[in-house]
Amino acid sequence: MKKTTFPTPQDAEAAFYEALERADLDAMMEVWSDDDEVSCIHPGGPRLTGYEQVRENWVQIFKSGQRLQVHLSDQVVVSGMMFSVHSLHENILVRREGGIAGARSVVVATNVFVRAGSGWRMVLHHGSPVPPPAVRRDIPVEAPKVLH
Amino acid sequence: MKKTTFPTPQDAEAAFYEALERADLDAMMEVWSDDDEVSCIHPGGPRLTGYEQVRENWVQIFKSGQRLQVHLSDQVVVSGMMFSVHSLHENILVRREGGIAGARSVVVATNVFVRAGSGWRMVLHHGSPVPPPAVRRDIPVEAPKVLH
Repeated sequence: MKKTTFPTPQDAEAAFYEALERADLDAMMEVWSDDDEVSCIHPGGPRLTGYEQVRENWVQIFKSGQRLQVHLSDQVVVSGMMFSVHSLHENILVRREGGIAGARSVVVATNVFVRAGSGWRMVLHHGSPVPPPAVRRDIPVEAPKVLH
Repeated sequence: MKKTTFPTPQDAEAAFYEALERADLDAMMEVWSDDDEVSCIHPGGPRLTGYEQVRENWVQIFKSGQRLQVHLSDQVVVSGMMFSVHSLHENILVRREGGIAGARSVVVATNVFVRAGSGWRMVLHHGSPVPPPAVRRDIPVEAPKVLH
């Protein structure tokens, strides 16, 4: 049973990133729809399917002690009455315990939200690393070499 | 102006993969929604945004001469009257010219379709490589080391 109502997909997305930064499992799982069809793909990772598998993975991630600071940019939205599809860049700074340190990276994320009785919930999160700028200039030539 | 009407999201998705295998640009672009908010992320690649950028990228991909054979599996769907969100695995065999050769790989893909006046159209494709099985056993511990 969800405690929080997210009146807009933007509210649900903001709660997702706040929970991620705070490593707050309960807050994170409030954002996700409770069903077996949710999917979560972390950068470089396999697909996780269903609420329980997604939850268990966040348990492990938050247990690692790593803390992230995430700045969002370049959001593109396609939405309707009952769905909202967001594409955006996550500009991530990995903080070590005891202060700012720093691996920085950029992830392109797809976040999909669906309207339910209890407001908007996330049904899909798909993140993948963005290649560094030097590579990005050659997108059309470089990218398709191995896979479409 | 689109010539084809896709009566279901499954029809649009089937057309996407047929166009990909045949390297048929016109058929591929029939599948995509014509608007500025579409996004396409190829495995390991940056985000492409808007119909024109997505189209130009497919021109380059198909020009490379590489041919793919794609077997789909593990589809999970979240859908409503006006949207359909598909998560699936693309089991890809890269064919060299003149016969089967073969790099094989697995991509996890998110495909999002929206219902328009002219049937269903793709608004987002996001693909990322799936790590090999040996790594996958350790998902919860391995994956979150660098990024969430």
